[in-house]
Amino acid sequence: MLPVDLPDTVRDALLAPLVDHACHGVRRDELTRSRFELLLNEGGSPAPPGTTHFDTPLGAAVRRWCAPVLGLEAHAPPPVYLARRAELGAAEVNRLLLRAAGVSAFLVDTGPEGADLLTAGEMGRDGGAAADEVVRIEQIEQDVAELASGGGSVLDYLAGLGDELTARAARAVALKTALAGRCDLDLDPGRPSRGAVLAAANRRLADPKQPLAEPALARHLLWAAADAARDRGLPLQVQTGMGTGMGAGAGDAGAQPAGPAPLAGFVKALQPAGVPVVLLTCYPYQREAACLAHAFPHVYVDVGLALAHAAAGAARVLAELLELAPFHKQLYGSGCRGLAETCHLGAVYFRCALGAALKARLDAGEWAAADAARVAHMIGSGNARRVYRL
Amino acid sequence: MLPVDLPDTVRDALLAPLVDHACHGVRRDELTRSRFELLLNEGGSPAPPGTTHFDTPLGAAVRRWCAPVLGLEAHAPPPVYLARRAELGAAEVNRLLLRAAGVSAFLVDTGPEGADLLTAGEMGRDGGAAADEVVRIEQIEQDVAELASGGGSVLDYLAGLGDELTARAARAVALKTALAGRCDLDLDPGRPSRGAVLAAANRRLADPKQPLAEPALARHLLWAAADAARDRGLPLQVQTGMGTGMGAGAGDAGAQPAGPAPLAGFVKALQPAGVPVVLLTCYPYQREAACLAHAFPHVYVDVGLALAHAAAGAARVLAELLELAPFHKQLYGSGCRGLAETCHLGAVYFRCALGAALKARLDAGEWAAADAARVAHMIGSGNARRVYRL
Amino acid sequence: MLPVDLPDTVRDALLAPLVDHACHGVRRDELTRSRFELLLNEGGSPAPPGTTHFDTPLGAAVRRWCAPVLGLEAHAPPPVYLARRAELGAAEVNRLLLRAAGVSAFLVDTGPEGADLLTAGEMGRDGGAAADEVVRIEQIEQDVAELASGGGSVLDYLAGLGDELTARAARAVALKTALAGRCDLDLDPGRPSRGAVLAAANRRLADPKQPLAEPALARHLLWAAADAARDRGLPLQVQTGMGTGMGAGAGDAGAQPAGPAPLAGFVKALQPAGVPVVLLTCYPYQREAACLAHAFPHVYVDVGLALAHAAAGAARVLAELLELAPFHKQLYGSGCRGLAETCHLGAVYFRCALGAALKARLDAGEWAAADAARVAHMIGSGNARRVYRL
Repeated sequence: MLPVDLPDTVRDALLAPLVDHACHGVRRDELTRSRFELLLNEGGSPAPPGTTHFDTPLGAAVRRWCAPVLGLEAHAPPPVYLARRAELGAAEVNRLLLRAAGVSAFLVDTGPEGADLLTAGEMGRDGGAAADEVVRIEQIEQDVAELASGGGSVLDYLAGLGDELTARAARAVALKTALAGRCDLDLDPGRPSRGAVLAAANRRLADPKQPLAEPALARHLLWAAADAARDRGLPLQVQTGMGTGMGAGAGDAGAQPAGPAPLAGFVKALQPAGVPVVLLTCYPYQREAACLAHAFPHVYVDVGLALAHAAAGAARVLAELLELAPFHKQLYGSGCRGLAETCHLGAVYFRCALGAALKARLDAGEWAAADAARVAHMIGSGNARRVYRL
Repeated sequence: MLPVDLPDTVRDALLAPLVDHACHGVRRDELTRSRFELLLNEGGSPAPPGTTHFDTPLGAAVRRWCAPVLGLEAHAPPPVYLARRAELGAAEVNRLLLRAAGVSAFLVDTGPEGADLLTAGEMGRDGGAAADEVVRIEQIEQDVAELASGGGSVLDYLAGLGDELTARAARAVALKTALAGRCDLDLDPGRPSRGAVLAAANRRLADPKQPLAEPALARHLLWAAADAARDRGLPLQVQTGMGTGMGAGAGDAGAQPAGPAPLAGFVKALQPAGVPVVLLTCYPYQREAACLAHAFPHVYVDVGLALAHAAAGAARVLAELLELAPFHKQLYGSGCRGLAETCHLGAVYFRCALGAALKARLDAGEWAAADAARVAHMIGSGNARRVYRL
Repeated sequence: MLPVDLPDTVRDALLAPLVDHACHGVRRDELTRSRFELLLNEGGSPAPPGTTHFDTPLGAAVRRWCAPVLGLEAHAPPPVYLARRAELGAAEVNRLLLRAAGVSAFLVDTGPEGADLLTAGEMGRDGGAAADEVVRIEQIEQDVAELASGGGSVLDYLAGLGDELTARAARAVALKTALAGRCDLDLDPGRPSRGAVLAAANRRLADPKQPLAEPALARHLLWAAADAARDRGLPLQVQTGMGTGMGAGAGDAGAQPAGPAPLAGFVKALQPAGVPVVLLTCYPYQREAACLAHAFPHVYVDVGLALAHAAAGAARVLAELLELAPFHKQLYGSGCRGLAETCHLGAVYFRCALGAALKARLDAGEWAAADAARVAHMIGSGNARRVYRL
């Protein structure tokens, strides 16, 4: 997996256990081929007739790196891989792949997922690691809205939102949102007016089953989460780039992928409160995210699921993050979701990509080996232990 | 051209005939140096005094790869190259360069070009390939508007637009537009209201010689094209990135280069109709395009003319597309226009760039040789044959 | 520093003296560790507790390349480096590092900086180079506004602005602005109406100590600068990307990093006047900038401070510029500011990055050695001598 001629200290640092600071639960149930293929893709649609989602970087990576973990030859054909998966059973497959990732702690977004996903505790147990919960604030809002719509007032709803955020934050290591792109933060990064929030909340309670699409209310929620994070000393994770507005699952027709630059004003407004802001995934705008992590002392960054998806191309993605993001601001997260394969592959390509970047710097005489080892340790686990107080 | 140590199957797949799914006719007339230089540049202006458009990646590539096709040494100086070009004559130069591209089918945008460009049929004849027509919808609109302005009513104009789209679609393999950036699709991806269309059409007919600049009318045209494409089972090609809003030829002062992300809502609205949307060129936003091709089952992508323009830097451009775009969603197009050189160079750099990407994956053990060969075949011609039903 | 096996002509061209067309003065005073660290970062904040700005690409580069210039081993630890810096004294450190850059002319932005920065003349003297002044137009505006607010009328203020621009342009080689992102140029690239300017100027004079934040007035200033540049035959330097809207020093909460694409309309409007527009820094949007430099005959581009900041990753940044920017449109600028280290590192990484790009083209047979040498000369100094009439 790693380049052959790295100094031992650097190799050891790369192979040391990771903190996966941003993952989701993986599926506990047996997966048919069609279900497995859907989970290979972020858009949620089957591949066009006559094609397969295995013909993607991620599909090739599953055959290359996950097949051997399940006892197959590398590059096993998809039917062979899926037959072996079925033979072993989902529970064993999850254990094998999560452990192969070499992770010592999972921080698990327990957001809008259902009973067929492993809980944070189960992720830790199956992966031989500690596990903590990251609270998804839009899930809290959804729960509170559905409750309030059964007869509660708007004021009850807003009070409930604050109470629930506080209560859930008390048991979590971070708050998280994928809503930032729907808050019109580039137009107004500040707290919305009370009147705007009340009006939006009224509309919201009329249709609480829908995903939240009121900018003023979404911004209110974001600021309420920032307050809760400040009070508990927790970071706020903000999903950006790939996966925030793309694809059939996006929930509203106008959503489009967007980089983190429009968050600059909000990020700046949070600076006095000292709340760490962790920009997640960010691809293909990882350089914009790196600029913010460079410019603001409280901004952190990862490229998450982009590593497993770019697969053989992951080195370039991570290399771009390394151009401007300070080494004490980068985190490792697999962004895994649904398939335990994505958890393992995130770790594989993170180690490969960082190893390639370090080797290039060592070969060119740019860095000393001790620096390379220290940076590998910081990004792989040290920064996460500091930021999340693990 | 290709790395020396590729497996034979992969080499064969890379060297197999391509389908060039997005090109324009090349010039049939003899070209002076100043005319040739203008065609080396997308902006349409001469190089500043004391400089030359040969001092560009494309200019260097012409001397490296096209000079030998014309019987000269590689790296021939510009005057030598142009003298040889004149000596052979445009007809022979076009035959030599188009054939050197190794293309089995040209899909030719016969849009706003004039009598000095080869027709689709002539491109096929000179290139030793099949040829089909891609209809440029803004050209149809221009024709209908000029006709209607000679006494026709707005209703005639709108009816004529629909009729002409239907008639032209019946003889084409795809519809194409470079208008998407002028439709305000990020504000409203849906069909415009009848009233808005009528008002815009009235303004339009007052000045039909100008390029279409009414967002509501442009959006109407886009939707009418989508309807025609759906009825005929044709893809809709949408130009994005480089070349859509840049440069002196852009037609309105406010135009600016833009990525495909603002098209997400429109793309999503088209999904139920099953119309394939092919994002063309996309550079420098090819990763955004790849995200859409990943997320939506009906979205396809190429980097077109960016290959010939980036030339020695093309490998990185294609490599970024390979990070997230499924292999069954990528197409080869030269985007060539005016100079037969750009047709040949598109093919050269496509094969070089894809060859380099495959070699890196094979050397790292990431892919098996059979996978590399299959992917080369898919992107080079197989996907186009499927999408365009060739 | 350079790849070992370059042809002598190419090596000589890369090592020839550079024109640094975009730099700032460096600090003349002795720097404590905390002050030095602040200057390593564009955001203006200390690193989070327990971390250091030395753990950045730039920090590693200082230890690698500047330590030997000060007589230390490469990779000296930060305390050793700073102790040696103190021992030598700021004046000697500046002389050593500025001379090590191998620059024959500095074009120095003498903008909003204070008495603790070297003047243009001092930069030239310490660096053994010629030096010229680049006038920062927002500094002129600030001076005129503060003067006018002491009793002057709005008309005096506007007249003073024009007079001062003319006077300062007469002694400068270029005008420069970092205001373009605050002019709403994407909404309206043209000259603002007299009424809008007067209204904005009235608001402005009520609070002249603040950075200019009135879009109409900022646009008026930009156009006035363009007029002055036209009259004197000077280029207009426009800061874009990294550093224009990011970070704590940005001055207004809504600022966000932005690429040069929204400048396309303004750039196009300037084309008839023949004023060269030089897009500075641009990172991470250097490909957008390259597109504009390709499309418009009067647009030039550099990546400035991004080279020193990306450090070991600089080759990829420059390589992206080389994809589409004509070779006669690229300039070398260190973008240095505060630390003489950034002046030296800009030159080091420019030569490394361009050397790597040229070597790749030579090794692949893409270019002849004479072409590589000519391009190195053009980008390193020839283009700047032409554009700035040095």
